[in-house]
Amino acid sequence: MRALVLEEKGRLNLRDIDLPEALGAGDVRVKVHTVGVCGSDVHYYTHGKIGPFVVKEPMVLGHEASGVVCETGADVTHLNVGDRVCMEPGIPDPTSRASKLGIYNVDPAVRFWATPPVHGCLTPEVVHPAAFTYRLPDNVSFAEAAMVEPFAIGLQSALRARIRPGDIAVVTGAGPIGMVTALAALAGGCAKVLVTDFAQPKLDLIGAYDGIETINLNVSTAQDRIMELTEGWGADVVFECSGAAPAMLDVANLARPGGAVVLVGMPVDPVPMDVVGFQAKELRIETVFRYANIYDRAINLISSGKVDLKPLITATFPFEKSVEAFDRAVEQRPGDVKIQITL
Amino acid sequence: MRALVLEEKGRLNLRDIDLPEALGAGDVRVKVHTVGVCGSDVHYYTHGKIGPFVVKEPMVLGHEASGVVCETGADVTHLNVGDRVCMEPGIPDPTSRASKLGIYNVDPAVRFWATPPVHGCLTPEVVHPAAFTYRLPDNVSFAEAAMVEPFAIGLQSALRARIRPGDIAVVTGAGPIGMVTALAALAGGCAKVLVTDFAQPKLDLIGAYDGIETINLNVSTAQDRIMELTEGWGADVVFECSGAAPAMLDVANLARPGGAVVLVGMPVDPVPMDVVGFQAKELRIETVFRYANIYDRAINLISSGKVDLKPLITATFPFEKSVEAFDRAVEQRPGDVKIQITL
Amino acid sequence: MRALVLEEKGRLNLRDIDLPEALGAGDVRVKVHTVGVCGSDVHYYTHGKIGPFVVKEPMVLGHEASGVVCETGADVTHLNVGDRVCMEPGIPDPTSRASKLGIYNVDPAVRFWATPPVHGCLTPEVVHPAAFTYRLPDNVSFAEAAMVEPFAIGLQSALRARIRPGDIAVVTGAGPIGMVTALAALAGGCAKVLVTDFAQPKLDLIGAYDGIETINLNVSTAQDRIMELTEGWGADVVFECSGAAPAMLDVANLARPGGAVVLVGMPVDPVPMDVVGFQAKELRIETVFRYANIYDRAINLISSGKVDLKPLITATFPFEKSVEAFDRAVEQRPGDVKIQITL
Amino acid sequence: MRALVLEEKGRLNLRDIDLPEALGAGDVRVKVHTVGVCGSDVHYYTHGKIGPFVVKEPMVLGHEASGVVCETGADVTHLNVGDRVCMEPGIPDPTSRASKLGIYNVDPAVRFWATPPVHGCLTPEVVHPAAFTYRLPDNVSFAEAAMVEPFAIGLQSALRARIRPGDIAVVTGAGPIGMVTALAALAGGCAKVLVTDFAQPKLDLIGAYDGIETINLNVSTAQDRIMELTEGWGADVVFECSGAAPAMLDVANLARPGGAVVLVGMPVDPVPMDVVGFQAKELRIETVFRYANIYDRAINLISSGKVDLKPLITATFPFEKSVEAFDRAVEQRPGDVKIQITL
Repeated sequence: MRALVLEEKGRLNLRDIDLPEALGAGDVRVKVHTVGVCGSDVHYYTHGKIGPFVVKEPMVLGHEASGVVCETGADVTHLNVGDRVCMEPGIPDPTSRASKLGIYNVDPAVRFWATPPVHGCLTPEVVHPAAFTYRLPDNVSFAEAAMVEPFAIGLQSALRARIRPGDIAVVTGAGPIGMVTALAALAGGCAKVLVTDFAQPKLDLIGAYDGIETINLNVSTAQDRIMELTEGWGADVVFECSGAAPAMLDVANLARPGGAVVLVGMPVDPVPMDVVGFQAKELRIETVFRYANIYDRAINLISSGKVDLKPLITATFPFEKSVEAFDRAVEQRPGDVKIQITL
Repeated sequence: MRALVLEEKGRLNLRDIDLPEALGAGDVRVKVHTVGVCGSDVHYYTHGKIGPFVVKEPMVLGHEASGVVCETGADVTHLNVGDRVCMEPGIPDPTSRASKLGIYNVDPAVRFWATPPVHGCLTPEVVHPAAFTYRLPDNVSFAEAAMVEPFAIGLQSALRARIRPGDIAVVTGAGPIGMVTALAALAGGCAKVLVTDFAQPKLDLIGAYDGIETINLNVSTAQDRIMELTEGWGADVVFECSGAAPAMLDVANLARPGGAVVLVGMPVDPVPMDVVGFQAKELRIETVFRYANIYDRAINLISSGKVDLKPLITATFPFEKSVEAFDRAVEQRPGDVKIQITL
Repeated sequence: MRALVLEEKGRLNLRDIDLPEALGAGDVRVKVHTVGVCGSDVHYYTHGKIGPFVVKEPMVLGHEASGVVCETGADVTHLNVGDRVCMEPGIPDPTSRASKLGIYNVDPAVRFWATPPVHGCLTPEVVHPAAFTYRLPDNVSFAEAAMVEPFAIGLQSALRARIRPGDIAVVTGAGPIGMVTALAALAGGCAKVLVTDFAQPKLDLIGAYDGIETINLNVSTAQDRIMELTEGWGADVVFECSGAAPAMLDVANLARPGGAVVLVGMPVDPVPMDVVGFQAKELRIETVFRYANIYDRAINLISSGKVDLKPLITATFPFEKSVEAFDRAVEQRPGDVKIQITL
Repeated sequence: MRALVLEEKGRLNLRDIDLPEALGAGDVRVKVHTVGVCGSDVHYYTHGKIGPFVVKEPMVLGHEASGVVCETGADVTHLNVGDRVCMEPGIPDPTSRASKLGIYNVDPAVRFWATPPVHGCLTPEVVHPAAFTYRLPDNVSFAEAAMVEPFAIGLQSALRARIRPGDIAVVTGAGPIGMVTALAALAGGCAKVLVTDFAQPKLDLIGAYDGIETINLNVSTAQDRIMELTEGWGADVVFECSGAAPAMLDVANLARPGGAVVLVGMPVDPVPMDVVGFQAKELRIETVFRYANIYDRAINLISSGKVDLKPLITATFPFEKSVEAFDRAVEQRPGDVKIQITL
């Protein structure tokens, strides 16, 4: 099977590779249509590892995918050949302690596409459990469906926040995850979301959405604006999406008494936190690890028109130009958010 | 002070009446601008009582109000003369057990405008605690601000439901409360809301909003449609807003396993409930009594444009024609939702 | 395999019967030691059905079981031959929508021991998924372990109530489920639990526990006592365990403003509920269907000594006298709570 | 009025001082009986300040108090002269935004006994709002009642944790707050609580309670023991009560996937936190600031016998020897937990 293979750090090839093709009773085979390029894919390409996950063998990249079911296992009842679908890239042990609790995202046994040593989905066909494959409504395109995966992280963040209708939120950091988190927070009930960053092009893109206000941190501080907006009370929820140490240290200053902070961004090393600052307002701090039970609600929100992810798709490449797509992603051009590959 | 006085069941007069005018240290005096006519006002007019609350003395009607601060008490710091405001009509004892818990709406000592023997606000000036008076952003009109009170009930319902982003909801009953509940559910994170009723004009009005689908119960059942829409799973949340016994008995059939039912409509007498039907899906049932800590978030949602209540205001009368406004409300014309009076 | 077989309504035999014996990769084979007799087992014996579940073929009874692992499937890692265990009698589809959410108890596909057409466990050996088989600490006896199943219902009720430390609870109905619910509520943080019933022997048994106070409804009302105890405020949580219509109608009167009601008892038909009574206090009503993710925490509480279920085991019969055990259970002697059978 | 006055850092006097004596309509006058010595009182004595709170004028110490009502204001209905009571030392503005939400502990306007410039209660009589004064059952002694204040912090911690019945918890740090947190966690539903410290005398004292296991950190690690006890899964809740930086950095290692961490201990400066460690298990982190709506439930738990605080009271001094009591507290003898003063 032809696939985009990361041979080792810094070396990508579009070539044939042996991949498992056996279809289990609960599986479907999916003809892949669109795959998004994620920051983690790029990081494996440029660094060869993320934390404890090291690329030791050639590995197929890609985990943000949509496609069409082309074969169904014997026990599959809710999907049919021809169904347009998107796939959740992490496959847990369904009988594990975490899975039984409904938090299968933190099952230590989860196998996740394009996380060593598990192959990803940048290849024309993949076999996947039907339970983690979701049918698309007609009005959701393959491109949007391949955005469900990154949006799911934003939506998991919104869910963990336990937003209450009419909340005011701050999102620190306007990278792709900050953007989808802001959109999820809005769709999830916030009246208004303030997004902060140093990069004006990113702020321009996300600030074009109704309900989002942006703050260029070169010009003013998040705290000044949120306190002005809320008459000194603070934000109901702060989504920390930058992963930057100074933002982490400041986060309690943005929240209202009794508010919530959601730590979405991942700093590499331990960072200093203002524990007494959290305590003085009795804040609740939530963390996010991927997502669980999110795909169907993400699809609902896209299909109903409450969330429009199309403006975040800023470039598309054909499968044959996958290496070019990755090299473009490495560039990190100011206007780029999500680069996709179509098969 | 001139006021709209309900002398007794069936007899309304616009006349002078003695009202308390002393301004406490924590109070503001408000020049009333707009007052909405509520079903409860009309019910006191036509029946002279609601449950245990009986009109025994002449009582000023009206509790959905906006206006302008014209005087502030000595201890008031967050409001100034000239501020455009709306007022929460229920005043609890702030040191009661319920108030200390933050659920001041269920404080047995609460005094609520136009609930015997407490006078309402259909009069040019009222004195009100500043703590229950809310400043309006410039882009929220007096008419919208007088809609905050009924909308607050919908928003309390949405809050009690603990909506999760992307939920699918059903609202049974498209009266004014069903309508504001549907809008609150959408603003609060639902991807889609199905509204059911027998009256097509009401369904047409609420069905014009994006994200709302309507079901005329003369034509099909709520259960058929919700099960079709959710592939047999059911609604995440069902808001029962009709108060009708058959709807109450059916409500468990509309919900998904593990879903929620919010009982908003108030049936006069005990009604049969399908307890085993609730149990077999392990549903959570929430109830709603007015609202607490809702006004600020309601104003946020109106100001941000996430909720547009203007289409629900279907007629406006000047103060001098208040009796006429009430008689129009008694008619219950098919296209009428909210009638307002401006002072 | 020898087993206690319900041939049809009213006819029980201890005889040989063919049962599935194949051991799957994720299964364990368990030598059964103790099985409790549940009201549902007795109901199938005396009535031949429960609601839609009708005994049409001979069926082995029993679902409250403990035993010893005597064989493990190829993929089983957390259990070993010789482990003392108890078994969760309901087996869901682990990849279903409900199971993925962690609410596998409401998975429509669940197969539950001794619920037609699924055989129960009153037989010397059973095959069971390891994921629903729980190792016992040394200090938990087989008799106690066979009590985990009924206790789990009480514990699920306590969990759904979201008890807060120091709450005051009422349990209406002192049958076996009322008793385990009262013990779970105490262990789960209640400071005090009032248990009501008409039968003094039951009240004597449960009233012997510290922290439990009993009310004989022939002598006084639940409402009088709870209001006296709480200075007119009401109970934080009311567990309705009688399933009786008059208790259902009264339940809102026992709760405090903002409190919770848990409907545990199952009335056969729809019953009148005081919806406005619930609303006036803005109560939350929870329902219970079996349990999910409860066995490990039930075992923790028994092992730590916080819950003592031994006084509820009031008679024990050997396997050969299983029919006699069931006939004794049919009698419903005043002092009987739980009858067990040892193999 | 005679009182224990902190003149300035390091200088205490038992002397006459002018204190406000006017009784408001909602106030009671209380004859003080017992006052506990808190770490914060001692800190003001030894350091003259805590964070931004600096002793600039002579200040009466003490905030953990019980006594007898000797006069009631005109509007007080729930208390009578002669009632035995304990008092909540923080008085919020009852109409503030935080108070309306029920989180009056984080009201910025709160006035707290013995926090500069507010006088404490180590004086024979105090005037206090009736709404924050709680009647004692007959079986709760004045000494226990003066322990309600520190216990309330533990109970607030247990509440914020949202313990589920049968949880396993870890408490890091066996100081007075660690001890009351461990007892609150047990009373609040935990099956077992592991308490860690380096000081064996403290561990001996708290380890004498049923359900508590202790770990001397000189001998073994918390992680080893909790993982052994939970078969590698981790604690459901970790209460960090040491405030020590190494414990803070390690806390994620003790928790189970999807578990909770409650930060109770207050480190002076920002401390490094392992954010990715929190995220990899998707932990929820709660913080605690004093308490709200806790006193009545604390009294319930003491009165019902579920919590026995008497072993924590390790020395008692008469009012005339108050300075001696404080000097003893400064010593921090190994066996001392709580020192009380009786008037």
